[in-house]
Amino acid sequence: MSDPKTPEQRVLELGLSIPDYANPVYGGRYGMVKGFHRVGDLVLLSGVTPEDREGNRLNPGRFGVDLSIEQGYAAARLSAINALGLMRLALGSLDEVKAIGRNLCFLRTNDDFEDLHLVSDGASELFIDVFGRAAGVAGRASIGVASLSRGNCFELWVELEAHPHSHPHPAT
Amino acid sequence: MSDPKTPEQRVLELGLSIPDYANPVYGGRYGMVKGFHRVGDLVLLSGVTPEDREGNRLNPGRFGVDLSIEQGYAAARLSAINALGLMRLALGSLDEVKAIGRNLCFLRTNDDFEDLHLVSDGASELFIDVFGRAAGVAGRASIGVASLSRGNCFELWVELEAHPHSHPHPAT
Amino acid sequence: MSDPKTPEQRVLELGLSIPDYANPVYGGRYGMVKGFHRVGDLVLLSGVTPEDREGNRLNPGRFGVDLSIEQGYAAARLSAINALGLMRLALGSLDEVKAIGRNLCFLRTNDDFEDLHLVSDGASELFIDVFGRAAGVAGRASIGVASLSRGNCFELWVELEAHPHSHPHPAT
Repeated sequence: MSDPKTPEQRVLELGLSIPDYANPVYGGRYGMVKGFHRVGDLVLLSGVTPEDREGNRLNPGRFGVDLSIEQGYAAARLSAINALGLMRLALGSLDEVKAIGRNLCFLRTNDDFEDLHLVSDGASELFIDVFGRAAGVAGRASIGVASLSRGNCFELWVELEAHPHSHPHPAT
Repeated sequence: MSDPKTPEQRVLELGLSIPDYANPVYGGRYGMVKGFHRVGDLVLLSGVTPEDREGNRLNPGRFGVDLSIEQGYAAARLSAINALGLMRLALGSLDEVKAIGRNLCFLRTNDDFEDLHLVSDGASELFIDVFGRAAGVAGRASIGVASLSRGNCFELWVELEAHPHSHPHPAT
Repeated sequence: MSDPKTPEQRVLELGLSIPDYANPVYGGRYGMVKGFHRVGDLVLLSGVTPEDREGNRLNPGRFGVDLSIEQGYAAARLSAINALGLMRLALGSLDEVKAIGRNLCFLRTNDDFEDLHLVSDGASELFIDVFGRAAGVAGRASIGVASLSRGNCFELWVELEAHPHSHPHPAT
């Protein structure tokens, strides 16, 4: 609250390039997935990976084998930036986000990798940079899994709260 | 909305055999699990696997090792049919489902499997067949994991929205 | 409802030692995680592992390799006890919990482990012991994964319902 800037103003300052999931429409590649669902003020986001809209993947691979913490941090951060695109799709503006609720983070790892939290920090810190500490800090778990679609190294599953006065957008 | 048929009518047309989780009571096999919990209009379903009520599993195994995409699609579809049974338990009728929110799909895979989304489509398409595109399309993530209970190849974790006027059923 | 005792009274009877996540403040070790988020009466808890507040882990390892069901049951139970600490942080008292909604249980396993549900029972039974059967039984899924932060063998992801009259605590 001490920061007078809004999330959309911070996005401009940070120079973030956020995908527009309205054009082309989100889910077009798979045809049967929507970007979010809102129930009251709870907004449930679809899974986001470190891919651009053309399907180019950032740092595909596996932690503990061929990816560094730094590469994972960047992939987690890009996934969170993609989540911002889903938030805009859901609410029209990031300024309508009241708070991030929880981030469930899936990482593609080998059996011995233990520093999952250092990778997930890339998503957590991006949300704090954009929404500030009060609204951007979220509950979290980091889970190391065998595989993710298309060999991605990270997938983010987000639950957030919208401002009550925000325009209820039909689920898309 | 262009389709005048209700979800229960589509179930009849599709000839789906949906388990009755009221008899025998859901959770009886494990004793300490309930089928769903409703908070306001948000309905959280318990995990569903491709098993019948006697515990017979459809296509146990692992993607990338001994299961085809087609076998996985069928297992995902059966899991979604079982989820319909939990929705009836929660709401009395599938016609009380306003929209599917998100499907978190867990697949038992090896480390190299990348076509998880093609398996999860089996659940997504079943929901679209029953609820129509507007209400049946959901947010989604597909996660490849080492193991699932009883060697199942798929488990589905669903969040949905009930019609506000639907009868609030006590969590069972 | 037949049991006149409250959850806080049951905690005393059971002699449970529940961590106080207010002191030191939850998330301090990682700096960018909060313990919960509440939207209306829905409370979303951050992931909890079988660790004390100093980071000492109970039974780190892998199911199917070097951990028994009994060791896993104890780790799941401790994770659930830690979740009670997050519930107190969110609601002030466990007596403000209306019902546990769902428990998503992640276990660190090898590829062949099939008895995940026997491990997760350690968390489910603890909630039933504290909240009684009507409020403590939850939806559940048990997922066997490659790795969890710091080599923990279990992580619990909980969604619950608070009493409408309970004091809305700012997300911490």
